[in-house]
Order: sequence, then structure tokens, then C-alpha cells
Amino acid sequence: MRLSTLVASLGLPCLLAAHAAPPPATPPRTTAEVLKASQPGDWRAPDPARTLVMELASGPVLIELAPRFAPRHVANLLALARGRYFDGLAVLRVQDNYVAQWGDPEADKPDQARSLGAADLRLPAEFDTALRGLPLTRLPDADGWAPVTGWVDGFPVAADPRRGRAWLAHCHAMVGAARANPPDSSNASALYAVIGHAPRALDRNITLVGRVISGIERLSALPRGGATLGFYEQAEQRAAIRSVRVLDELPPEQRPALELLRTDTATWQALVESRRNRREAWFVHRAAHVGVCDIAVPTRPAPRIPQ
Amino acid sequence: MRLSTLVASLGLPCLLAAHAAPPPATPPRTTAEVLKASQPGDWRAPDPARTLVMELASGPVLIELAPRFAPRHVANLLALARGRYFDGLAVLRVQDNYVAQWGDPEADKPDQARSLGAADLRLPAEFDTALRGLPLTRLPDADGWAPVTGWVDGFPVAADPRRGRAWLAHCHAMVGAARANPPDSSNASALYAVIGHAPRALDRNITLVGRVISGIERLSALPRGGATLGFYEQAEQRAAIRSVRVLDELPPEQRPALELLRTDTATWQALVESRRNRREAWFVHRAAHVGVCDIAVPTRPAPRIPQ
Repeated sequence: MRLSTLVASLGLPCLLAAHAAPPPATPPRTTAEVLKASQPGDWRAPDPARTLVMELASGPVLIELAPRFAPRHVANLLALARGRYFDGLAVLRVQDNYVAQWGDPEADKPDQARSLGAADLRLPAEFDTALRGLPLTRLPDADGWAPVTGWVDGFPVAADPRRGRAWLAHCHAMVGAARANPPDSSNASALYAVIGHAPRALDRNITLVGRVISGIERLSALPRGGATLGFYEQAEQRAAIRSVRVLDELPPEQRPALELLRTDTATWQALVESRRNRREAWFVHRAAHVGVCDIAVPTRPAPRIPQ
Repeated sequence: MRLSTLVASLGLPCLLAAHAAPPPATPPRTTAEVLKASQPGDWRAPDPARTLVMELASGPVLIELAPRFAPRHVANLLALARGRYFDGLAVLRVQDNYVAQWGDPEADKPDQARSLGAADLRLPAEFDTALRGLPLTRLPDADGWAPVTGWVDGFPVAADPRRGRAWLAHCHAMVGAARANPPDSSNASALYAVIGHAPRALDRNITLVGRVISGIERLSALPRGGATLGFYEQAEQRAAIRSVRVLDELPPEQRPALELLRTDTATWQALVESRRNRREAWFVHRAAHVGVCDIAVPTRPAPRIPQ
């Protein structure tokens, strides 16, 4: 018996009506239904001037950069890529449930390390930024690591309104700039991607520069390294980096053609709700909750090559 | 200038003393320091009667089972393993940032499916259990998915005291029994392990049976499958399961010799605190928070072969 029928049979329809929540504007939907109903304006192409394509033997890894959060690191990284710094370097470290890291295997040897060219050797830490003015799509659910979470420009973000600061969150597939102990010891020549459970303890401790938007499995399925921290013990175990290019360096027809769902739309809000309460028939318990690191931004093949 | 020196120079030492928190009973330590100070009684061997060793071409995967939470599924799984059900089956599905799943590739074909022998074909769902009486080591920090979290018998657990229920949490390396849409359609002949960010939306929707305590990288580094849900498209892409044995079936000298840190000790509490506030020199920001899925239970080679 449905609740409304039960209540009617008890003669309490008016009581129920007085206390019932208003019906939602749209009926609850599954993620697939939300995506199917999406409109062209709900999608965007990655900006070719701030998206990298890293070619491994297994195929391309696309990384969208976040200049709003790490302007100095992103500028350095773009200069390094345009200067062909990464071509011929390698994935040096894969630690299970943590990170894959790449760069120059000889970076610590001054006489053998590759030159950074016109890029800066050292940058200020860019661990957080001003919250004011950020176009944050807020997630309503609680997060143990920060008072506020949400999305900006397609990136997972955490924030502390009391301090007026915001920062990128270490979710799966986020990319950061490795550093030594000094907070300002990163320069984006050594990078890592999160391949396991979100290591949120790294938030506000290291500069995140972007997110792998396609091809993260080319890093996460690499063999784990056997040395401390997952570094490979032998050079021949490393996955070689054939090249890293800024997307705008490639002719349009050679650019990977994909689109990302925007995170500043009603469609995104509906998608978040579809993850908070799963409507697929398989689910018997709905959590009424989701975390900022539980939702990957959907992608789809682009209907045309981005201009 | 240290704060105490600064305060003394301002003539406010008494004011500070009146408001200062009492010093902690033990000085804050790093995880490495906590483990170094651990005593033999802080460690335990896995119970050979409820621990499986699954042999892949790459080596062993050890799975400790959780009969307290899923007694029927664990009994079935042990009967299946003792009946050699899994020998020669395969890993069928690896979906990035989600799960690796193994079992009988012909399970859906009644005339070709392997017999379950003495095991039950169908079991009741074991999605949660009574909270009362559980020896829960509580985590003080908030969790968005449940009112309470902590550890029981080395497993990550979530609970709802108002409803008096507790359940295993879908953290990295947890192992569950795949099911179809009916909640009671699992029988532990098809299993999955979490290889990515904790899919906590699965909590209370599917029966977890244990945790990979060693060798999860032999599943998480497998190639991802190209078909829907990460299933492999070709049979030859699957990783073969040479055998699954209950540890007590092996002569003691052939059992993998490792110990796990107990989760019901003061040492465990100190380890949790070392993850809540990272004391390693590298960290500049301490979160004063950790999630139940952020801490993997440490293991070490056993000083002697478990009896």
C-alpha cells in the first residue's frame, strides 16, 4: 500500500498535506537519465591553451590545468611543455593506492639533470587561494576535511569561509607538483597524479596544478614500483614519456576530441543529486550523501573538433 | 620567536597558562615512530581458518574474512575454496577507480557454469549487523556517510547508533560478494575488491566479506577492461586464478608469514592520531582529521610462521 493511500484510509490527508515537503521540481533521476537529458550548453571543450596531452606507449593522458588556483605553476608547466622538457622523461614512481609520479630521473644530479630552459627553477607555494570571487558550485553535504566543498571550473575544491581561503582537493586523478621539504621547492618539472583513494591529508601541503580528464588508467594500471615510496628499482621498469604537448600546439584535427560536463549548471546539480541518492534499480539503500571526491566529471566524444 | 617567548615578552604568561590545553600524555609522533615503539602484543597473525590465499601468475593475494559481519557468506566462501571452486577461474573485470571482480566467466550459462558443490546457491543479504556488542574502536572524526565510524577486528566499520546497526565500509582493498538486482542474489562465488577511491555509496547495498591484507596491487595494477563496467572483451585478457586456498589447508611453512597491527590497542589509537595530524617534517598543514578509509592497517613480516 502506498503511503498516500494508507494516509487517506486513516482519514488524515489534510494533516499529511500540511506537513509534506513540496514535490521536487523534477523527478529524481539516475545519472544516465541526467546525462541523456543534457543539452549542448551543458558541455564544454577543454581550453587548448591550458590542456596538456602526455603521450605514453599505451596512449594519451589528457591533463586540464587550473591557472585560477596555481597561476605560477601552470605558467611554468606550460613553458616546460612548450620547451619539450618532458619529451623522453619517464614515470619514475607508482605507489599503490597513492600516486604515479613522473619527471627527470636525474633531477637530483646537477651535472646530469635536464635544463628547465626558460622556466623558473623555484616558485612560491600555491597551496590555496582567496575564496572571494570564486565561482563555486557548492556541494550541500558535509566533508570531514573542510567546512565547504564544491566545484570550480570542473575541479574539486575545498574551502574555509572563516579564513576566506579555498584550495583544490586531492581527489582521484588530480595532478600536483612534487616538492621536497621546503614548501617553495616545487617548480612543476616533477608531477604526480592521484591513482587511489583521495589523499586529502595532502590538501594545503602541496600545489595541485590540474586534473587528468582522460587516460588516468594509463597511469593507475602501471606496475607498482618495488623501492621505497613506489619508485622503480630499475630504469627499464619505467614507462617512457614520448612527449608532452600543449593542446594548442597540435593541429586541430590531431587534438583528442572530447567534451566535459560543465560544473556550473542545473544539469550538474541534477547529476550531483543522482549521486547523492542512487535511483538505479540495483540500489536498496540511498545515502542522501556524496563527497566531493566521489564524483568524476563526465566526458564524452566531442561532436566536432574544438577550434 | 617562539610563542611562549613572545607571550613572556608581552607580560602575559599567566593568561596563557590559564587557557593553555594540558600537554598530551605522550608527545605527538609520526606513524613510523608509533610503529617503531610498538610491542609484540600490538600485532597479530591472521587467523588461518578465515584467511584465503588467491594465487595469481603475479603472486599471492591474501584476504582476511569477516565472519562477524557476514557469517553466511564467509561460510559459503570457505566451502567454495575448500571445494576448489575458484581454481582455474579468472579475474573478469577491472574498472578503473572502482573494482576488480573475479569468478566463473560462464556463471550465467546454466549448462556451462561450474558447480558450487556443497555451498549454498543463494544466501540472505548480510548488508549490516547489530551494533550492540561490537568491539568498535571509534574514530573521533566526522564521516559524511555514517554517524559513527571505527574499526572492528581490523576492518573499517560504519554505524548508526540510533538504528543500532553497523556495517563494513567500502574502503580500498575491501572484498565483497557481487550480486544481481535482488538483494539476496549473492553467494560469494563472484567476488570483487575495491581498487580505487572508497565507493561508500555501496555501503548497505551489498555484502562485504573481508579485506585484502596483502597483494592488493596484484589486482589494482591489472589492465582495465574495455567493455562496459570494465569487463574484459577477450578471454585471453583475463588474469587466471591458479588456486584459492584457506590458509589452514597449507602446511605452516607454506603460509605467507605476516602480521597485522591490532586495531584495539593504545598503539592503534596513537597511529590514528599520527594520521590525523601528520608530524613528518614535510607537512606544513595538519588537518586534525582523518577518515576511516584513509588508514590502511599496517602489516609486517611475521617473526615466525603462524601456528
